[in-house]
Amino acid sequence: MIPNTTNNISSFQPKVLIVGTGAIGSYYGGKLAQGGAHVSAVCRSDYEKVKNHGIYVESVRGDFHFIPEKVVRSVDAYGDVPDYILVATKVVPEADVPKLIKAAIGEQTAILLIQNGIEIEEPVASAFPNNEVISGLAFIAVSRVGPGHIRHQDYGRLTLGCYPSGVSEKAENLSKLFEKAGIPCDVTPDVVTARWKKLVWNASFNPVSVLGGGVDTQTMLNGKESSRLLRKVMEEICLVAKAVGHELPHDIVQTNIDGTLVMKPYKTSMLLDFEAGRPMEVEAILGNAVRAAERSQVAVPHLESLYALLKMVDQKNRRTF
Amino acid sequence: MIPNTTNNISSFQPKVLIVGTGAIGSYYGGKLAQGGAHVSAVCRSDYEKVKNHGIYVESVRGDFHFIPEKVVRSVDAYGDVPDYILVATKVVPEADVPKLIKAAIGEQTAILLIQNGIEIEEPVASAFPNNEVISGLAFIAVSRVGPGHIRHQDYGRLTLGCYPSGVSEKAENLSKLFEKAGIPCDVTPDVVTARWKKLVWNASFNPVSVLGGGVDTQTMLNGKESSRLLRKVMEEICLVAKAVGHELPHDIVQTNIDGTLVMKPYKTSMLLDFEAGRPMEVEAILGNAVRAAERSQVAVPHLESLYALLKMVDQKNRRTF
Repeated sequence: MIPNTTNNISSFQPKVLIVGTGAIGSYYGGKLAQGGAHVSAVCRSDYEKVKNHGIYVESVRGDFHFIPEKVVRSVDAYGDVPDYILVATKVVPEADVPKLIKAAIGEQTAILLIQNGIEIEEPVASAFPNNEVISGLAFIAVSRVGPGHIRHQDYGRLTLGCYPSGVSEKAENLSKLFEKAGIPCDVTPDVVTARWKKLVWNASFNPVSVLGGGVDTQTMLNGKESSRLLRKVMEEICLVAKAVGHELPHDIVQTNIDGTLVMKPYKTSMLLDFEAGRPMEVEAILGNAVRAAERSQVAVPHLESLYALLKMVDQKNRRTF
Repeated sequence: MIPNTTNNISSFQPKVLIVGTGAIGSYYGGKLAQGGAHVSAVCRSDYEKVKNHGIYVESVRGDFHFIPEKVVRSVDAYGDVPDYILVATKVVPEADVPKLIKAAIGEQTAILLIQNGIEIEEPVASAFPNNEVISGLAFIAVSRVGPGHIRHQDYGRLTLGCYPSGVSEKAENLSKLFEKAGIPCDVTPDVVTARWKKLVWNASFNPVSVLGGGVDTQTMLNGKESSRLLRKVMEEICLVAKAVGHELPHDIVQTNIDGTLVMKPYKTSMLLDFEAGRPMEVEAILGNAVRAAERSQVAVPHLESLYALLKMVDQKNRRTF
């Protein structure tokens, strides 16, 4: 039974450790600190800057300064057991999440993954079978503009849920803390379906923006062939999602197209990663979807074309930069 | 009835006008001149250099110097009626072949197209319904390294045939002239099928090399997903070819893979065009195949993915350079 925690949220001050203190980790970690949590951060490249000056968050909702309670170079230097580990690393082969977080996982530690892609929770859930894994999706435009400097451009909504399904007290409490800090935060009993929903956009616009030579959302939507390709990829994602038990709303393709058409032209996050020579989330966004399709014997020819091409582009991009 | 022309080939000295005096046009034009033809050339960017110094052809089969009889800036300056117009322009929207060659077309002029792609003959055949159109395919590695300077790296074989089908005296004579100059030259009564055969390689390796981020043949073949993509595209080309009446050999996909596997890794011609900022033959190689598939109601999801992406890349590439 989940107790009603609404009344005691002001006294809910959990210990939170951020792993992956980039744009996403810094923004949501900073918000949790504003909500009253004791937030510490694992920083690698930006360690000196953040240790001495904290993280400056330029935000459309008002700038703020986030000073983590502890700033450490790796999880084992934290010296405490957090109530939540907030994992916001990119989902790339280089980032071995179970290995990264192992040293700080206590009996009561819930692991919150705010990351892209599908089927990304399983390796963490397997490595820590007795810990709660909370899967989170961020709908936000935020980027790191320099060491200890984050720019929040738009949005910010979160969706959370327990993996593989359900809702827990820890998830509810965390959601309320986010809401208290001004972050709209839904809790869903079916977060895996929410991930497939988000993938409809991510698996289409992201790869096409890179493979199309670095094109923005409107350029993709304006081309007869390219907008058709976006639709075909989205339809394939719906077929796979349904085959693995997560049927998506019947109008989700049109909703994604229409929703993007009314936005200003912009570069996808994957394109920004590509242009900066950073690894792209090829496996989390495309590879896992193609493999789910294979397991379910669903034909995804457009998706597998994008996957084959993007995999080569990513390998080459990493070597070049 | 086609007369036996074998015995009089030494006295066969036709007037040939080259339109598109790039690598292909210069090499084959130079060879026809060696065979005894009176070869003139339309040059635009390299006019001064070629007018004064001719074209130097570095070749694995022996360097040679090709001095066209006339060098003109446009077809209407030729002042004669050629027996053959050798068209070797890239097949891109900028090059309007009927318009380019109109001024030199006489009653007896045969139009030889040595170009890539499929369904490229129709606009020319429609514009000049009373002239013979000879369709030609070059299997050659040759590139322009500077003004009036061509480098022939390997191969050189030609396949010719009348469009839409058949063999003519003019085609036979031309073939013998090429053979006399050392160019293996097959004459086929079904050149359209020969084009579809060549497209199996061109529609797969060429676009994937560009869209994969600039990869060579072995990189494409080595990747599990990318080699699968190559095969899928090839299989789709076979399906479309069959649907439009040009069934290809059952082992053509494997033959293309095996043939490329034993070659040294190399960059495709489309990748070289892309890297140099030149327009790519997107429509001749992919667009026409996708449209043939649509007319025949054949599903070509891999091919249409490549087409949609490459079209965007080409548009962007032209703007950038």
